[in-house]
Amino acid sequence: MYFHRQELQHKATPDAPDAVYARKLQEVLGGQYGEITVAMQYGFQAWNAHIPGKYRDLLFGIGAEEMGHVEMLAVMIAQLLEDSPLGITEDAVQSDPTVAAIIGGTDVQHAIVAGAGARPVDSMGNPWQGSYITASGNLLADFTANANAEMQGRVQVARLYHMTNDSGVRDLLSFLLARDTMHQNQWIAAAAQLREEGYEDLPVPSNFPLAKEDRDVSYEYINFSNGEAAAEGRWASGATPDGKGEFSYVAEPQAGVPMPPPTHPDSRFYGTTELPNIVEKTAGAVQDAINKE
Amino acid sequence: MYFHRQELQHKATPDAPDAVYARKLQEVLGGQYGEITVAMQYGFQAWNAHIPGKYRDLLFGIGAEEMGHVEMLAVMIAQLLEDSPLGITEDAVQSDPTVAAIIGGTDVQHAIVAGAGARPVDSMGNPWQGSYITASGNLLADFTANANAEMQGRVQVARLYHMTNDSGVRDLLSFLLARDTMHQNQWIAAAAQLREEGYEDLPVPSNFPLAKEDRDVSYEYINFSNGEAAAEGRWASGATPDGKGEFSYVAEPQAGVPMPPPTHPDSRFYGTTELPNIVEKTAGAVQDAINKE
Amino acid sequence: MYFHRQELQHKATPDAPDAVYARKLQEVLGGQYGEITVAMQYGFQAWNAHIPGKYRDLLFGIGAEEMGHVEMLAVMIAQLLEDSPLGITEDAVQSDPTVAAIIGGTDVQHAIVAGAGARPVDSMGNPWQGSYITASGNLLADFTANANAEMQGRVQVARLYHMTNDSGVRDLLSFLLARDTMHQNQWIAAAAQLREEGYEDLPVPSNFPLAKEDRDVSYEYINFSNGEAAAEGRWASGATPDGKGEFSYVAEPQAGVPMPPPTHPDSRFYGTTELPNIVEKTAGAVQDAINKE
Amino acid sequence: MYFHRQELQHKATPDAPDAVYARKLQEVLGGQYGEITVAMQYGFQAWNAHIPGKYRDLLFGIGAEEMGHVEMLAVMIAQLLEDSPLGITEDAVQSDPTVAAIIGGTDVQHAIVAGAGARPVDSMGNPWQGSYITASGNLLADFTANANAEMQGRVQVARLYHMTNDSGVRDLLSFLLARDTMHQNQWIAAAAQLREEGYEDLPVPSNFPLAKEDRDVSYEYINFSNGEAAAEGRWASGATPDGKGEFSYVAEPQAGVPMPPPTHPDSRFYGTTELPNIVEKTAGAVQDAINKE
Amino acid sequence: MYFHRQELQHKATPDAPDAVYARKLQEVLGGQYGEITVAMQYGFQAWNAHIPGKYRDLLFGIGAEEMGHVEMLAVMIAQLLEDSPLGITEDAVQSDPTVAAIIGGTDVQHAIVAGAGARPVDSMGNPWQGSYITASGNLLADFTANANAEMQGRVQVARLYHMTNDSGVRDLLSFLLARDTMHQNQWIAAAAQLREEGYEDLPVPSNFPLAKEDRDVSYEYINFSNGEAAAEGRWASGATPDGKGEFSYVAEPQAGVPMPPPTHPDSRFYGTTELPNIVEKTAGAVQDAINKE
Amino acid sequence: MYFHRQELQHKATPDAPDAVYARKLQEVLGGQYGEITVAMQYGFQAWNAHIPGKYRDLLFGIGAEEMGHVEMLAVMIAQLLEDSPLGITEDAVQSDPTVAAIIGGTDVQHAIVAGAGARPVDSMGNPWQGSYITASGNLLADFTANANAEMQGRVQVARLYHMTNDSGVRDLLSFLLARDTMHQNQWIAAAAQLREEGYEDLPVPSNFPLAKEDRDVSYEYINFSNGEAAAEGRWASGATPDGKGEFSYVAEPQAGVPMPPPTHPDSRFYGTTELPNIVEKTAGAVQDAINKE
Repeated sequence: MYFHRQELQHKATPDAPDAVYARKLQEVLGGQYGEITVAMQYGFQAWNAHIPGKYRDLLFGIGAEEMGHVEMLAVMIAQLLEDSPLGITEDAVQSDPTVAAIIGGTDVQHAIVAGAGARPVDSMGNPWQGSYITASGNLLADFTANANAEMQGRVQVARLYHMTNDSGVRDLLSFLLARDTMHQNQWIAAAAQLREEGYEDLPVPSNFPLAKEDRDVSYEYINFSNGEAAAEGRWASGATPDGKGEFSYVAEPQAGVPMPPPTHPDSRFYGTTELPNIVEKTAGAVQDAINKE
Repeated sequence: MYFHRQELQHKATPDAPDAVYARKLQEVLGGQYGEITVAMQYGFQAWNAHIPGKYRDLLFGIGAEEMGHVEMLAVMIAQLLEDSPLGITEDAVQSDPTVAAIIGGTDVQHAIVAGAGARPVDSMGNPWQGSYITASGNLLADFTANANAEMQGRVQVARLYHMTNDSGVRDLLSFLLARDTMHQNQWIAAAAQLREEGYEDLPVPSNFPLAKEDRDVSYEYINFSNGEAAAEGRWASGATPDGKGEFSYVAEPQAGVPMPPPTHPDSRFYGTTELPNIVEKTAGAVQDAINKE
Repeated sequence: MYFHRQELQHKATPDAPDAVYARKLQEVLGGQYGEITVAMQYGFQAWNAHIPGKYRDLLFGIGAEEMGHVEMLAVMIAQLLEDSPLGITEDAVQSDPTVAAIIGGTDVQHAIVAGAGARPVDSMGNPWQGSYITASGNLLADFTANANAEMQGRVQVARLYHMTNDSGVRDLLSFLLARDTMHQNQWIAAAAQLREEGYEDLPVPSNFPLAKEDRDVSYEYINFSNGEAAAEGRWASGATPDGKGEFSYVAEPQAGVPMPPPTHPDSRFYGTTELPNIVEKTAGAVQDAINKE
Repeated sequence: MYFHRQELQHKATPDAPDAVYARKLQEVLGGQYGEITVAMQYGFQAWNAHIPGKYRDLLFGIGAEEMGHVEMLAVMIAQLLEDSPLGITEDAVQSDPTVAAIIGGTDVQHAIVAGAGARPVDSMGNPWQGSYITASGNLLADFTANANAEMQGRVQVARLYHMTNDSGVRDLLSFLLARDTMHQNQWIAAAAQLREEGYEDLPVPSNFPLAKEDRDVSYEYINFSNGEAAAEGRWASGATPDGKGEFSYVAEPQAGVPMPPPTHPDSRFYGTTELPNIVEKTAGAVQDAINKE
Repeated sequence: MYFHRQELQHKATPDAPDAVYARKLQEVLGGQYGEITVAMQYGFQAWNAHIPGKYRDLLFGIGAEEMGHVEMLAVMIAQLLEDSPLGITEDAVQSDPTVAAIIGGTDVQHAIVAGAGARPVDSMGNPWQGSYITASGNLLADFTANANAEMQGRVQVARLYHMTNDSGVRDLLSFLLARDTMHQNQWIAAAAQLREEGYEDLPVPSNFPLAKEDRDVSYEYINFSNGEAAAEGRWASGATPDGKGEFSYVAEPQAGVPMPPPTHPDSRFYGTTELPNIVEKTAGAVQDAINKE
Repeated sequence: MYFHRQELQHKATPDAPDAVYARKLQEVLGGQYGEITVAMQYGFQAWNAHIPGKYRDLLFGIGAEEMGHVEMLAVMIAQLLEDSPLGITEDAVQSDPTVAAIIGGTDVQHAIVAGAGARPVDSMGNPWQGSYITASGNLLADFTANANAEMQGRVQVARLYHMTNDSGVRDLLSFLLARDTMHQNQWIAAAAQLREEGYEDLPVPSNFPLAKEDRDVSYEYINFSNGEAAAEGRWASGATPDGKGEFSYVAEPQAGVPMPPPTHPDSRFYGTTELPNIVEKTAGAVQDAINKE
């Protein structure tokens, strides 16, 4: 169950309206790595979790916080749009090119569709979508997805920080940056603890019997480009992070195997096939089909 | 530049056709964490890279290998479909319910659209899309994204391994599992090396001045659910992975701040506003608008 | 701010697993009119609202309840999937066609992607998307959208009710049906009150000056099909619901106006244009372009 | 069958080109509530209708009109784009910032993809999609969807009216506003008549046996936010619009039920499970799987 | 303007219901190359056309016919669904596996969302989308797109023909196949006439000054795969179809040019850059940014 | 297998950064007819091909070249973005309106998401998607799709050529234009050769028995619009391109057949049905359902 309190976790009021910036801020509300994504991602991971206890509790606890971040950003965007110009192109251009410039940089659906309100889209107007989230049931994989989401999110907020001078906006971003710092640390710590406690290990999924994979190529860096610098990386020699092998460097991919011959599906799929085949099939299956149908 | 060789990196021929399994295998070809995703993701990360040397070389080298994995899966799927039944429902049901069952489980576009060929879609028929990939320019974030992609991918291949008894298919999956093992290890090693060499650190992005974030909440676990188990996690006390703080546990979120008052955009957006406002605006801005227009 | 409590509003446990039904239930979780839609829709309407007081309070109150419905459905789906078969096609078909039949009817990403977990998709596997929601800032329009959403939702739940005999599932659906009954009534009542209190009226938006619309055709039913039955409807004669006119029936559309002539954009767009034009432009603008570039 | 006449229902010629406005106008051509949506929505509702007579006739009659509205907007947009600048950024910026401003506000695919032509997209360039439409077979639900579509559409046209001074454009919008007025009235009248004639009633669907829903919560406003203002609304006390109950106000949600325990799917899905479980399963099912595979 | 007549161009009634086939038929209604695509494609090409006369007339004439094809397929699908089973899994499996098989093969939204009605989606449930259509303003390109659409469409209908024994369905498909035959011929004829009359020529667009393209590589087949068979094709030697050159075969791609050095964007984008750069920028731009902000 | 060489096929370096143009160039990288589309399209056609020899070799050879074109465009876009302004709106507007103008015209995700890097999207920010490609298994249809793709692509590059004065960009476009010239010629030649060699013929698919289509309407131009000009086209009289008939012109569509009566699905789908039906069904099926459930 979710309960709502008509307060915000942190102040979310700009000094002044800025419709162009409102559009940019949509990225961290409704983009691939925006707050809707993490709120939903942590929710689905919790609902699909197979273990009770501290890990699921963690997912529930953070998921609800992120819904509150969605709200703070939506409320901020609505205020940034509050005095946004209507966007009468003719007028704007004639009187003041900067007004036209501003209009050019806005999300025009903010005006036409939402009447100066926030929208569930990213900064280019693409609607948020369920395929942004990850919830596999394997928590080591999923916590790594979460760490990535918080990293990408913090990178985006850091960039947005420099795209405005509004102290009210920066105050909120400063808060979100700090929470992203926490959440990065948290998911890395949680992933480490999963390994320490023996729930999962590398490679993920760790329960799959290693004997069933082709161990000959499990630790080979195979170089499919013509550079040689990658030979110097930690991924090309030394112990592997999973503690189960040694990296090796293969400068030139092994010879491959021949392509299997092209397929010959039923001729009633009407693909283009070899000529003798066509002849045969015309006299054969297709003709039969004609006759019997 | 890319060059193609008409060989496969590993054998990709099934023992027998299986149109239902062909559909399932689409997931690791054209799904969120399929081979098209990693091939494109590593490509875009390389093209957007700001450093030459071993990291970009690594991205080029692996990206091209993944394009070859796309090819192996496509060729495998085409062979699994080679003798797929046409799917005449009436016939199937009358004569043999298992045939109807099989048809029920297939991707019907395999037959209708591709004529028994592979498609750039996932196992539910959703087209692959560019929003599956991540390439931010920040390599610590991106390598974490890559580690996640290889983990999710290996989990999916492991599941698919148990959904077939076909030894030809399993032979290919066994190879892919091993490469995913390599790639998990590799991205984790590459991320570690980035930190060791001082390119990036936690929290990501590490160059953003920490003084500009709200450090009071940078290491607080704030509990927005009513469980208490999360207090026992490593994310609730002790040193943080970024080495810059100590986790603390906040059992109850701090009191929030009041919601800002609702916005009052230009009345010509025709949102629903407070009554006096309506009256005023009708006598005011809208009336003016009427007059002057 | 949102808070989570680790309880469910209503019991959500099936009598027995049913992976085929789990897929169907996704519709009311992640479909166009599923619970994610209404949870997000009421949230965005509240954040974009221009009036405080009871209407925004209503949106907040119901929005949070709907997030809890998302959770109940997700938890139910995970349990329906708990003992779902792995889906080894060969085995299934050989031993028991009904197992194959079941597999054919499932969302295969439930198994491959989510490991027997719920997903943010509809019953055909399409990801939920932000474009399902409506939040225009005009509350009479939006409450009508809400009434529609609850009607469509209840129709879908009613259909789903007959597609299972599981008493645990039916118990939850019975609860959801009742809440949809409430929510239909509620939005209709709220829309009526908006009109009574003078916030909005028909036609929406009611503040737009009627004098600016082409009043000649504001109440005409213009018949663009060759049926005559529509002449008998309430929309063809009598007073209009907005209280501002009389319906009339136009059996045959008025003669239209001539199409404007085709456009002739800059020839450097390389569209196909009339011949003299091509000649001229080749000797003219394009030639100029060639010369000066 | 559909027949086309090379005339327009209303004049659709702008006074002057305006590429920025052309982009905005795309919203009501190819957006969520644009003319393609209603044309297709009324078509599908008619084709899926279960009753002949006046309701289906109405759907056919209006659906064809809306196709003509699609055409008028497309023709208008093409003319607005007719003299749109090519958009040579360098030139524009050097000579005249307002030209750059205009280019900044355009749909660049209008130029690059369509060569100064209209496109089946909204004002942010998102392609129109089938999931915008609603056709459930339940006409009371669907007519409510239609009323909403016409309300949202008219709100958008009203906003667009103020974003231009072009008298040709405004003349067309004035016509569309009037038709939206008609269509709002019409769907509300049609919905009312459905109820009067006994086809459907509230709650929708009215044939579903009420005894099967959880009547205890059918008319309760349950407050999941901490506001109290919603207690004053018509949805919190008094007779319900369906005439079958009395609203009541529940200030605090009833205590919920405990969450069901987490699921434990087959270990071959490789989700993260409780430790004893892992041990057991490793020694058990997985081990068996290894052996037998 | 569009007018509707309540008749069908051809009979569209199945002998018997078949919910599995109804799903398959969705492909040619709402798929990439279904009837909605061509109806919309021809419409947009006409509205964007720059020449009046026979070509635009052709587009209008065929576009309206295709809308009628949308209708025939929708009506057919609704009838195929008329007696579709509700899909109670438990019942079906226990009593008759073939019923479960049928349910497994259906579009479950046909039942849950549309109440046994047609939907604007393809055979895998993906909504139709505006990005399926092509309307560039260049008619030689667009007529080629149209020829392709009619070819792909006819291939699909031919495949569907063999997936049913229903004589009513086959009768309609037989009609559609013939119309696709006409439309293939028609677009090929129209493209040829465009060239004969001098409107356009190869390469498209023919007005672009050839001197501005890199003529050295305009007719070279450059072989990026290791096969040699392509050397025997008509594209490897002889006169080119545009009549302006001779094909040549390049067995091995020319040496390329070095990659440009990686980019170094503003450090406030927080990408990962070379170390000296980081040091410098930290002491430089970022430090400045810190100070001044 | 794919191999990467760290060179470019052609120089791809701009004279100067231009973030607005970078956005426009995304169209031919990640748009409907961009390089990702053709690279993937030719790959899937090759993997699905049913014939070995020169046609599949051709597809492999060109497909790999197109992957190199993706790379050149991505690298070019990254350089165009290298010195793109951060986009601080306030600053920009105050100091220099042209800077604001530029910001208004950029893809803001270039900055926020990719840190001045290329993205897998089109010029309006829509992610590339698998549904852009065509690979039916029928090579005459598919080569026609390819010819269309190269025509649309060349039209777009030609338009882009005129939207910049940058000689470095124009140099690359000049190369791409020439390759598109080659590829248009090549697919037209390949399609012609397929016909000459007897693999396929018109109408596509040519193996489908013509006797099974409704030959009465195979060559009729049926005029569904009120223009008469189309009667003069080559599609209205004379021999048809497939060499199997004569075009004829039908000025007025034949009378259609009556619409089939509306469907009456199971009442438990809760569609709106005729009154007697409701009564009956209430007393009948639904009542039964109530009783037995």
